[in-house]
Amino acid sequence: MDIEAFRKAGYAAIDRICDYYATLAERPVKAEVKPGYLINALPDHPPEQGEDFEVISSEFEKHVLPGITHWQHGKFTAYFPSISTFESMIGELYTASVSNPGFNWICSPACTELEQVVLDWCANLFDLHPDFYIKSKRGGGVIITTASEVVLTVAIAARERALRILSEKEPDVEEGVKTGRVPDSDTPMKIREKYGQRLVIYGSTHTHSLGAKAALLLGLQWKAVPVSAADNYSLRGDALRRVIEEDIANGLVPFFVIGTVGTTNTGAVDRIAEIGQVCRDYPTLFFHVDAAWAGVAYSVPSLRESLRHAEVNEYADSFCTNMHKWGLVGFDCSLLYVRNRQTLTSAMSMTPFYLRSKESEAGEVIDYRNWQLALGRRFRSPKLWFVLRSFGVSGFQKHIQRGVELSSRLGDMIRSSARFELVTPQSLSMVVFRLNPGQSPNALASDDLNKLNSKLSSRLDHRSDVFITPAMLGSEEGNMEVLRIQTGGYRTTMEDVLAVWKVVEEEGEALLRERE
Amino acid sequence: MDIEAFRKAGYAAIDRICDYYATLAERPVKAEVKPGYLINALPDHPPEQGEDFEVISSEFEKHVLPGITHWQHGKFTAYFPSISTFESMIGELYTASVSNPGFNWICSPACTELEQVVLDWCANLFDLHPDFYIKSKRGGGVIITTASEVVLTVAIAARERALRILSEKEPDVEEGVKTGRVPDSDTPMKIREKYGQRLVIYGSTHTHSLGAKAALLLGLQWKAVPVSAADNYSLRGDALRRVIEEDIANGLVPFFVIGTVGTTNTGAVDRIAEIGQVCRDYPTLFFHVDAAWAGVAYSVPSLRESLRHAEVNEYADSFCTNMHKWGLVGFDCSLLYVRNRQTLTSAMSMTPFYLRSKESEAGEVIDYRNWQLALGRRFRSPKLWFVLRSFGVSGFQKHIQRGVELSSRLGDMIRSSARFELVTPQSLSMVVFRLNPGQSPNALASDDLNKLNSKLSSRLDHRSDVFITPAMLGSEEGNMEVLRIQTGGYRTTMEDVLAVWKVVEEEGEALLRERE
Repeated sequence: MDIEAFRKAGYAAIDRICDYYATLAERPVKAEVKPGYLINALPDHPPEQGEDFEVISSEFEKHVLPGITHWQHGKFTAYFPSISTFESMIGELYTASVSNPGFNWICSPACTELEQVVLDWCANLFDLHPDFYIKSKRGGGVIITTASEVVLTVAIAARERALRILSEKEPDVEEGVKTGRVPDSDTPMKIREKYGQRLVIYGSTHTHSLGAKAALLLGLQWKAVPVSAADNYSLRGDALRRVIEEDIANGLVPFFVIGTVGTTNTGAVDRIAEIGQVCRDYPTLFFHVDAAWAGVAYSVPSLRESLRHAEVNEYADSFCTNMHKWGLVGFDCSLLYVRNRQTLTSAMSMTPFYLRSKESEAGEVIDYRNWQLALGRRFRSPKLWFVLRSFGVSGFQKHIQRGVELSSRLGDMIRSSARFELVTPQSLSMVVFRLNPGQSPNALASDDLNKLNSKLSSRLDHRSDVFITPAMLGSEEGNMEVLRIQTGGYRTTMEDVLAVWKVVEEEGEALLRERE
Repeated sequence: MDIEAFRKAGYAAIDRICDYYATLAERPVKAEVKPGYLINALPDHPPEQGEDFEVISSEFEKHVLPGITHWQHGKFTAYFPSISTFESMIGELYTASVSNPGFNWICSPACTELEQVVLDWCANLFDLHPDFYIKSKRGGGVIITTASEVVLTVAIAARERALRILSEKEPDVEEGVKTGRVPDSDTPMKIREKYGQRLVIYGSTHTHSLGAKAALLLGLQWKAVPVSAADNYSLRGDALRRVIEEDIANGLVPFFVIGTVGTTNTGAVDRIAEIGQVCRDYPTLFFHVDAAWAGVAYSVPSLRESLRHAEVNEYADSFCTNMHKWGLVGFDCSLLYVRNRQTLTSAMSMTPFYLRSKESEAGEVIDYRNWQLALGRRFRSPKLWFVLRSFGVSGFQKHIQRGVELSSRLGDMIRSSARFELVTPQSLSMVVFRLNPGQSPNALASDDLNKLNSKLSSRLDHRSDVFITPAMLGSEEGNMEVLRIQTGGYRTTMEDVLAVWKVVEEEGEALLRERE
């Protein structure tokens, strides 16, 4: 394809995307296809000769689009939003046009520096502590694929930090493997053998599975500290401290705590200051705050207090929020901020001969490969730059406030419903509710109610005009099966919310009729 | 931005990209900017009010493009290519238009299924063993960001596999931590404590730093087995076996071997069958073949034998090649194939309540999140689909053959040069050479020659019209500093190669004159 053919094909792609968005509201939310639909529709080998680009593009529309679950649909209220704006799409297009792996500053200085600029812009937008800015030269931010990769990255850095602290305390350990070393690390193998498998990661029973998965990937233990419905499912310092003390008594080494601002189940906000104080009491502990969904709401000053913004600024060693969820930037674009960049670089740096550069050796530049797991990295900052400049701070805030307002109005409707009840206070753009026809206040963990809501969830799962995620709220009071609706979608309107709610009410009524 | 504004802005972006490619040849290869150039040019906070999109786009051109090192430039011959074609860019645009995190089949069935389809297409293109196809239901392929993330992923899977084997052999281990467990894993903590830190990863001194980095990230040992210049820097089975036997005698546990097809330094091909035989002799060993750059050349039947294609098909447990290097697809798009998918899924699977789906529970679909580290994942298959269909097998092969042909002609020129010499046989689209004015055949590790070539490299590094990566060839015979030129770029022509070579010759001559 030459330049003029690209111009033609590019215009056509833009037109097709315009058509897609113009017809999005008419499409189902969830793909209406059966497993294997696409595998069976396409040939099992690539074509021998190149094909006409217009044909390929039309087959994308014919075969691929029907298998898309439309996360950009106004009625998409499942999981969390994964918004893509037109501004972000154009950013991605520019990224693709100068494709390169960005592992070094010299690979493309703009890749590193634009990332530094927009990360400091976001630190400003979210009013983060000065240490989290790149320009502090102490900490700073980096774009990582996802919040789960962020946790794995930070957990590795925290592991190395804890082992360094232990090896300083115990220079004379005698047990274990005495030969060999981990590349580019000064921590002796004997310290690793004594403590390496005794390290423990902590979160709550409502922490996202990213905590347990990081533990699985690192071959370490994961402790999910119980929470209470009376505390709105937020992790408390005392409960964490009890588990940590018991573990220490059993010879384990606590090294990493995940606090959540805006849990997946209910949007709960853990007690950050309480947890932070526990972390200060045990020097091997590193405190990560996962605000994957809710963190972008720090852009709105009036929302900060309930999200424990000041506590995060005071206590978190690292902080993550996903611009690719509620933050108007397409997937993937997860922001990781660390208070001390050396925690990352001392655990991840590796510079073989062929990656050396005069600018790096002069210490003049950041080489972001040493802040992350992989060597190569996408140029993800343009989409962030286009979004932040095109919306401005005020446009970004307005978007966040709109999502909160829609949920607030939905929450009022549920509160006044005779069949449904809110089970937790509204959290930002999310409401958590269940069918409770008797409106029994003490039925928290009733098996009958759980079964009823499980059936409702299953009924809704068979509809393609809505997409609603259920949740199981485990707590000291028992397990409660609920449903959640998030209204943070960029294209979600009050009409969409009303239409989704109508479906929930209808299915609820139908279920109750069926039961009678 | 509404739909019509997007149409306008999208057309304008396509036009700008056309302009960029039309003027690419006139630009320097390497960005001519100083550290901090962009940070100093942009404001330190985002704008309060949204800005005009045309202004933002023109500032992208004004501020960002000068800081881009042009990997798509015909004269870019550094590192490895990181090609982006117009077809791939349009694929990325479609991906951005339906942005979603793809962690489940139901997230968007097309994301999972198109990936399955194109991965089997590539298995066909590269003539991989039937076990590596998804449709084998035994192994299969998945798209991961980069070859380094692939190695980390596979190393984790191999670690869990080795620990399972050890725990089956030793059900009665008594030492170590007896309580607790790693989430979603059956391997007892006492097995992890006994062996977890004794595991060792192997490669050669010419293996890419991805091997050592995986070891660093996992807190494990990395053994770089020496190679010999006489073997063209390829890893031999006997050398590997000697190191492994010594490690076992010292109580260590070999669990993961990286063989390389096409090393970064010289394009060397390790002795895959010899290494594979060693791996078969030690049941805890898992054999990964990293063909990040060279693997795409398996598309050309006549190139397969020298790349030990049949040996990879016979012996590799997993195989990786990057479509985003020489493979015409924009970054990131690394293909990981495994012979047994359970090696991945038994080490990475995690399904909390909110990620359950009826299709997964019925076992009808693949949930790719359980084949990778992160939860969320980009929809990377469209760019691969557009490239494979638009080029066809024959177009893809032609592109690979052209890169080989350009290197072959450059190699002939170097062979006939009085000042320069080839130091290894040409490997695909790469030539490795050095300045050796005396043409002394026994000067392999001469310090003087190394210093001379280091100076040449430094002179070339100060030019922005070429970009050439040096390499340090360590071997049993000593260290040799060399330069490498890769001619695999999609837009690289014979004129470009001649122009680059002319610069190398001029700088070499100037250096020799200076020395006299």
